[in-house]
Formats: sequence, structure tokens, C-alpha cells
Amino acid sequence: MRASNYLFSTLRDAPTDAVVASHQLMVRAGMIRQISKGLYTWLPTGLRVLKKVENIVREEMEKAGALEVMMPGVQPAELWEESGRWQKYGPELLRMKDRHNRDYCLGPTHEEVITELARNELTSYKQLPINFFQIQTKFRDEVRPRFGVMRSREFLMKDAYSFHANSESLQETYETMHKAYCNVFDRIGLDYRPVQADTGSIGGAYSHEFHVLAQSGEDDIAFSDSSEFAANVELAEAICTKQSPDAPTQDIAEVLTPDCKTIQKVADFLALPVEKTVKTMLIKGIDSEGNDTIVALVLRGDHQINEIKVEKLEGVVTPFEFATEQDIIDTIGCKPGSIGPQGLNEKGIRVIVDRSAAAISDFCAGANKDDYHTTGLNWNRDISDFVVKDIRNVVEGDPSPDGKGKIVIKRGIEVGHIFQLGQQYSQALKATVLDENGKAQTMWMGCYGIGVSRIVAAAIEQNYDDKGILWPENIAPFNVSIIAMNYDKSEDVRNECDRLYNELKLAGIDVFLDDRKERPGVKFADSELLGIPHRLVVGDKGLKNNSIEYKYRATGEGEDVPREEAVTFIRKTLQVS
Amino acid sequence: MRASNYLFSTLRDAPTDAVVASHQLMVRAGMIRQISKGLYTWLPTGLRVLKKVENIVREEMEKAGALEVMMPGVQPAELWEESGRWQKYGPELLRMKDRHNRDYCLGPTHEEVITELARNELTSYKQLPINFFQIQTKFRDEVRPRFGVMRSREFLMKDAYSFHANSESLQETYETMHKAYCNVFDRIGLDYRPVQADTGSIGGAYSHEFHVLAQSGEDDIAFSDSSEFAANVELAEAICTKQSPDAPTQDIAEVLTPDCKTIQKVADFLALPVEKTVKTMLIKGIDSEGNDTIVALVLRGDHQINEIKVEKLEGVVTPFEFATEQDIIDTIGCKPGSIGPQGLNEKGIRVIVDRSAAAISDFCAGANKDDYHTTGLNWNRDISDFVVKDIRNVVEGDPSPDGKGKIVIKRGIEVGHIFQLGQQYSQALKATVLDENGKAQTMWMGCYGIGVSRIVAAAIEQNYDDKGILWPENIAPFNVSIIAMNYDKSEDVRNECDRLYNELKLAGIDVFLDDRKERPGVKFADSELLGIPHRLVVGDKGLKNNSIEYKYRATGEGEDVPREEAVTFIRKTLQVS
Repeated sequence: MRASNYLFSTLRDAPTDAVVASHQLMVRAGMIRQISKGLYTWLPTGLRVLKKVENIVREEMEKAGALEVMMPGVQPAELWEESGRWQKYGPELLRMKDRHNRDYCLGPTHEEVITELARNELTSYKQLPINFFQIQTKFRDEVRPRFGVMRSREFLMKDAYSFHANSESLQETYETMHKAYCNVFDRIGLDYRPVQADTGSIGGAYSHEFHVLAQSGEDDIAFSDSSEFAANVELAEAICTKQSPDAPTQDIAEVLTPDCKTIQKVADFLALPVEKTVKTMLIKGIDSEGNDTIVALVLRGDHQINEIKVEKLEGVVTPFEFATEQDIIDTIGCKPGSIGPQGLNEKGIRVIVDRSAAAISDFCAGANKDDYHTTGLNWNRDISDFVVKDIRNVVEGDPSPDGKGKIVIKRGIEVGHIFQLGQQYSQALKATVLDENGKAQTMWMGCYGIGVSRIVAAAIEQNYDDKGILWPENIAPFNVSIIAMNYDKSEDVRNECDRLYNELKLAGIDVFLDDRKERPGVKFADSELLGIPHRLVVGDKGLKNNSIEYKYRATGEGEDVPREEAVTFIRKTLQVS
Repeated sequence: MRASNYLFSTLRDAPTDAVVASHQLMVRAGMIRQISKGLYTWLPTGLRVLKKVENIVREEMEKAGALEVMMPGVQPAELWEESGRWQKYGPELLRMKDRHNRDYCLGPTHEEVITELARNELTSYKQLPINFFQIQTKFRDEVRPRFGVMRSREFLMKDAYSFHANSESLQETYETMHKAYCNVFDRIGLDYRPVQADTGSIGGAYSHEFHVLAQSGEDDIAFSDSSEFAANVELAEAICTKQSPDAPTQDIAEVLTPDCKTIQKVADFLALPVEKTVKTMLIKGIDSEGNDTIVALVLRGDHQINEIKVEKLEGVVTPFEFATEQDIIDTIGCKPGSIGPQGLNEKGIRVIVDRSAAAISDFCAGANKDDYHTTGLNWNRDISDFVVKDIRNVVEGDPSPDGKGKIVIKRGIEVGHIFQLGQQYSQALKATVLDENGKAQTMWMGCYGIGVSRIVAAAIEQNYDDKGILWPENIAPFNVSIIAMNYDKSEDVRNECDRLYNELKLAGIDVFLDDRKERPGVKFADSELLGIPHRLVVGDKGLKNNSIEYKYRATGEGEDVPREEAVTFIRKTLQVS
């Protein structure tokens, strides 16, 4: 592509509402323009990247044996009523009426449509397993669209849906798709982790999210520094290698701890390490007869409660709810800041202790008396009748649950999600096939999503510097930029640029020739902002010495290349045969 | 692709609502499925064809220098209010409200969005001309969606929009796009005509439609049998080579013509050729002072009035409106069936005579008296004070307006439309650039559409037989089908089929291997229904004689090919090097 035939919409400044790097850089590099809140036009530079990502995704889906289809974006309400989601789905589902006053929605996802297709087209177990995918614009009416195309209302998604005669077949395709997703992100060249994900309201099903690691991510990902283990922080098991506490060495003592509003302040005041303290929280529970009760959760002072883990325990109100201050005062006789686990069982409160808290000795806890704490506490000797559970978030340095290495926590951007749906939709929509015995059998389903447009933003979040974007080679809008100095005035420069441009194009390389009448500084800055990985500068000065200047965007390193070797040099560098 | 890994949804019968061949065949061949009125899922076979069409369109747009972008499908009402179309556009525009109660529509076209983009991104004449295109799903809420994807509510469209500093530049790009459109349809392999089209409400602009010729078309196209000339029947100039009538040979006579309700009946009754009669119609007119008048239109008995041509004449009410029967009786004294041009000017009625009617002599017309006609009429001698204009539809056999050959009329399916928009949208949305003198200058615009999904249907309308589809090579879902006889039982067949399949695939050929456990008859029928152009049949019987049976779908002709030459044979036939 020649700059003179191109739309070069680079900007010096990003819009004020762009708070993350990818949003700022995509606007500044002329990749996207907002037309209305959360609705974007992809300009040529942006679309080039998007199409490259799309093609990688398509190729890997085809390799995984998935068949491409294209379902309508506008979906009839009837199907959503059959699945029960017409009512359940919140205002993210954009509902509308057509000219005949019939209800439709703009598809945020396609489980209903594909299940309708499957129940009509699939009649025999012999047709299974089968896996359909599409790459299509979706719409979700986000309450607060933000971060550019990272959380826009319209976005490009690859969604796939597989159908199976049994759960084993589903598991097989699930693993194939897991591998295909890894191939996609490997080929794009991203640092990512497949992480165990919460299955949400669908119990028993199995699910993985694929996260690109980046500071601006909205999720915390816990992963091992020396194995494949990765999970959402909320789901990662917190391991305590110390099985039981040391023997007591101290007696208990009640001490005044005035104005110590946090556990850290208590520890500082008493000159104790915070790891030698516990904090006790009271939450709402329910007993086996259905009566309201109170449950105490005890954690080491430096740990944080994990509400998802707690919600999975028996006898706990879901969603997770703290006891009110009044409840606490009425039951314990003190304010929340001074609770300790001692004697709570006598007040009818069940005590659940986190594994790590249960492994310490001679510790400090609230004294169940305002402004007092008790030191020298020891389990069993001073506190009895409690259970030990995993109820905390993992922290960096925790042992990895798979026994290999230590936990590292980074922020992640979710770019993919694979899910074993089981029979939820096929049951609701009565999608059956005849099995070997001619009996109707409800199909098993998997679904698999990739946020194609979000990948573009996530790739930038992971690859940029103060000058602009640093594209991974396989999704760069152009791989090579030729910067022509005085293209309009110097015949030598013009001929050499045209020759390079044509020969690199012939070699199948995405090459950009900046033939504009602009100052070199403007061209350099634009090339760096756009993140074109390889740069050739052609000027009269260099040509006099028979040389062209090469520079690699990622490292800033370069060299002078003899003009007749420039094409070969680039082909070698890009490994184009 | 192997049939065993594919979705093979062929049907014996088409749905009852499918009245055109393409709709029937697309459903029967498992290309599309309707999910709701006018909303279709494209199954793998259909999508393969659609993608091939899409790729040809994209390649030709890029060759023509257009830059691909992707605009949002959901568009804010504000832009449509600026252009004035939020009010003007009928119920085909699907309007909706988002969760914040703001107005949006589902884009049926993108003039507003692209003009908004252009006014922001284009600032200087140096950036012009520039041409943007996108290939995107559009939505038009058709009152009566029909003919499958030919007139569906969602459809895939390529729309392009060009911006210019002046009308000459617009004309240049218009011609480039005209050529690009011809390239597209040539490459797809369709019999089509670019036809001059009505410019509708935008006076002075220039427009061409591209029609695929097919019986089921909704438009009548007039074209020359020996030149490039083609136009919508409504627009084609009707030529009369006879410049003036022959000298009179008869005297006028008034004859009783009872119960002759049509001009044909009059001619039959009087034993006259219908070409020797004229019919006179009265329509509403308006004089130079704005008063209501009546205008008489006179055509040869065998010709049809062309309302669009009449509407372009001065002194005629638009839209075209016939005078009421009461008006006729009041003015002339007879009913509509007996009007003639004689003496109308004396009643204040302007007489406009079609060129062909003006070239006959000794003709018959209504006698302006119920149930009477006048014979032996001659222009000037019997009727004076009339003007001669082109006011009829062309008919087959008319001379072509470009002087080359005769007119042929066929039905056409509109698959493309290019349009010189001029400054309509750029003026409304204030899209200006600075010209050479630093002065703001409103841009000129062109727009260019191709119905990508409609092309798929149109290609079938032009290429099918009683067994199924006859795909043009470049858009066939597969080019070669290998039909395996007893694939599961015969090792020889299996090995040979697998070898052929792999070698053809390696050669880059879209090959389909029917490895299903089905009767040969079923496989033959499916291959013919799908319209795969080339068929190889591999069976034990043939292999014993070292031969494979080849058949060409379009002609039904074939031959036996030695097994070791089969790949070379196909490569030669498909001209794959």
C-alpha cells in the first residue's frame, strides 16, 4: 500500500475518554473511530489487523474440524422464549419490534439459533459429533461501554457450538477446541493463560477462560511460575503446606488495643507480624431447619476472604451477605473490629477457619470486647469446635495447587471462553437425535467464544511503548514500511522505493510505502505509532553509499543494508521463502 | 472436505413458499435455512459460495483502489436526522431504542455514517479522491420478504462510497467502479448487463444498475442484440426510424365499433393491423399559470405508455395521473374507449404524440363519440397543433438507440447499482475539504452497491436444470466431487479415493469426497443437486480396469480416465498449474 492512496488518520492526541493504552493508541494510529457510544468504525489500518486475527481464528477452527456457518444477527423472540432467556437476559439484550410489531433482538450470542438449527438438521447420532462456528458482529447493550473496542457494544466474535451424543464426545471436542484456542493465541504471538473459570449458574459444567496478561486487564489471574496451572484468583485453591500448628508456647492475655481499626494496626500496636493474627468475620447463615443463623469466618490477618468459595459451603446464605453491625453487637456484645473466634460456638455460631489461619500458633485475635484483643491464642487449647476450609484468595508466593512452583498473580484480559454447556439448551429446545437403538436422545452441547475485535486491543495492551504500538508480526497491519526521503524530488529515491515496494509485494509481504510529501520526522513518528515492525529508510545520502537503513521497531536496533541486498535481507528477517 | 465430516442437509422437496428456482434449490441443496421471515442461516455449502463471491468482490474493489473499512451496523438517529432521512425513510428502516432510550436504527445503507467519517477525517483536497468500501450485513425491513435470499431482510452487501474535489474526479472513479463491477460479474461468470437506470428523485445524477439476466427477474431490461447498449425498459429511448408519415391515400370515415373495449378488438373488427391504429389517453396536466389542465397522449395501438418519460415532460402532473372518467365525459363527451386526437386542441387539450404514432398514415382512432371510431386519419391534414415526443416503452425489435442492432428485452435481477450522488449528503452533513486556495469546498460523492448474497441466488437463476444447480466454476462450493462406491468395504476404493482427495487438495482444488455409507444413487443425486461441476466416480469395477469415471455436470458428458492420470486430468480441466 502506498501512503498516497491510503487514509492516514494519525492523531497527536488521544480523546480524553480513552484511559487505557490500546484505546488511546487505536484512535491515535487511525485504527478506529467512535460513531456513537460503544459503536466504532474500523478504519483501513484497524481493519487490516482485525482481518488478520479473523483469518488466524478461521484457519484454526477449520483445522479443528469446525464447519463455518452464518446465522442472522437479528433473532426472533420466540426462540429466546423457548430457552427462557427472553425474560432472564437483562438490558444488555437489545430488544426491538419489526414493522409488523413482532419481537426480535440483536444477537449477543447464538445458543438459541444454533440449537434450533441442530434440532432441525441433526436427526441421527451418525451425524455427531459436529461443530459449527461463525465469525460475526454481535451486539451487547453494555451499560457503560468503555476501553474502546475492548468493551464496545458492537464487537466481532467467533462463536462455535458443538453437538454430541454423550458427554465423553463433548469432552473430546472440548479438548480439541482448547488446543485450537492455544494455537490461535500462539500464532498471534500473545502471552496468555487458559484458566479454570467459574461455571456460574450452570453447576457441574466445565469451563476455561483464555486471558491475555496485561496490566489493564479486568480480571486477576493466578498461575504457577513453573507449570501450566492457571485459574481465576476467585477459583484458585489456596494451599497451606503446614498441616498443623506448632505446639503452644504462650498463655493467653487480654490487651487493650485502642483506635486499632485494622488488623494491620493491631499487629503494629502489639509489635506482632500480621501473619500471627487472625481476623473474624460474621456472615449470614442458615441452619438445617431453614432458620437464620450466623457463621464466623476466620482468616489470617494478611489474607482476603473469597466469597465464591464461601458461597459453595453448606449453611451459608447466597449471595454472600455480612451480618449487620447490630446483629454482631446483639450476639457478641462488641463491634465488628474486636471479634475473635473464642467461645463463639457457645453462642450457637458455627466457626469456619481458613487452612492457613488454622496452621498458626500463639496468635492474636479480637477479644469479643470493644478495643481489646487476645494474644497467645492456640487452636484446640483455647478454641474448640471449628471446621477448616479453603475460604481465602490465593496470594503471590502461595504454593501452586498442582504442587509445581509458586503462584504469580497478574491481571488478564479475557479474550476467549470455552464451555461445556451440557444439555441446558438442547433440553429446553428439545434438540434430540435418534441413538443406535432408534431412541430419541437429547444432545450434549459445548460452546466456544473468541473476542476477535477484543484481541486486537489486548495485543496492544501487551505490546506498546511510548512511541506507539509494537505489533506481533502475524497481525501487524503492514510488516515493512519503506520511508522515502524526498520521493517527489529525487528520481533515484523514487526508483529505488518503487523497486523495493514492488519486489517485496511480489514476495507476498505486506509492505507500506510512505511516499507522502511530509517531513521525515512525521513519517518516522507515524511508522512507529502504527507499530510497523520493520522499517527501511531510502534517501539520497544512503543511496550514494549504496545503502538503505534498516531498523527493527521492537528493539530500535538496525543496520545499513546494501541496496541490492535489501529485499533478500527482509525476506530472511521475515522468513519468507 | 469429506462428507463424513460435513453437514449434508439436502432435501427432496422445497418448502411450499419457495416459488423461484434459486430459493427452492438453495433450500434443497442445504445452503440456507429460514429462521424467521426473511432471516436466514447460511449453512456450510451456502457460505462457501457466499465467501467465494465476497472474495471476488473484495479483490476487484482493492484492484480499483478502494480501501476497506467496517462501519457499525447499528447507527445513531442523529446522523439520519442531519441528512433528513430519519423522517423520510419508510418502515424499511428498522428503528429501535437502546437501554438509555436513545434512538438507533439497523443500517440499511451507510451514506450518513461514511459522510460523518469523511467530514472528520478528510480535511484537504490532497486526500482526494478516496474510495471506501465495506462488505457487511445490512437490514431492510421489507414489507414482504420473498424469493429466499433474493429479497431477504438481512443480506450481505458490498457498499462503497467515494469522495471528490469536483465532478470530473467523481466521473473518473465512477468509470473505474463501472469497470470493476464488470470484472466482478465476468469473473463470477454471469450473463449480465450494466443498464442506464432512473436517477429517481435526485435530478441530474448519473446511475447504472447491473442486472443478471434471468426469467425470474423483477425488472425488464432492454438491450441491443449487437452492441453494449442496455437500459431499463422504462428508460430506453424508443426510436422511430421513419421520420415522417407517408402521404394520405384515404379519406376519413366514422364507423360504428360496438363492444370494442380494447384497441385490438377495434383493429380486429375493422380488419386493420393494430399498427394502423392509435390510442389516446387523457392525463392531468398543469398550465404555465398553475391551473389544472388536461393533456392527451397518443400512441400507436400496439405500444405502451411510459409514465417515467411522460413525467419528465413539461406541463404534466407528477406523479403521473390519468384524468377521471367524469373529466373525460365532461370535456370530450364520450367514455375513455372512444377518444381520438382530432379536435382536442380546440377544447384546450394539449396533444402529445409518440414518435411512432406520428409516423403512420391512414390510421384509425376513437371518434370522440361512444362506440364510434374514425378511419383514414392523417396527421396535419386531419389533426393539427400537436407535439411529437418519445412517450412509449421500447418493444423487442425496436432499433437500438445507439444505432447498432435491434432491441431485445429480457428480465433482469438487479445485483449492483452505482450512483453519482453529487453533493446531496456532503451538503446536508457539511462535509468539506480545503481546496488549493484554502477555501472550504463541499465534496462530491459517489456510491456503489453490490448485493453479495443476492448474487448467489441470481447465479442459480441463470444456471440450473431439473437435477439441481449448475455452478459457474469460480463460485462453486466445491469444484470436484469424488464419489466413492463402497468406501467402507473396499480397501482399493478407499485408498484410491483418499489418494485422489489428498492430491487434489494439495493442488489447491476444492474437492469433496463423498465417503458416506449411502447408495450410489443418493450420492449422484446429491452431487448434482449441489451443482459440483466435476465428478469422479471411484468403484471396484472401474478400478479393475484401472479406470475412474469422469463426468462434467453442465453437459452430462464424460469419459473414463486411467487412475494414474485422474489428477492430471482434473488439473488440466480446471487449468490449475
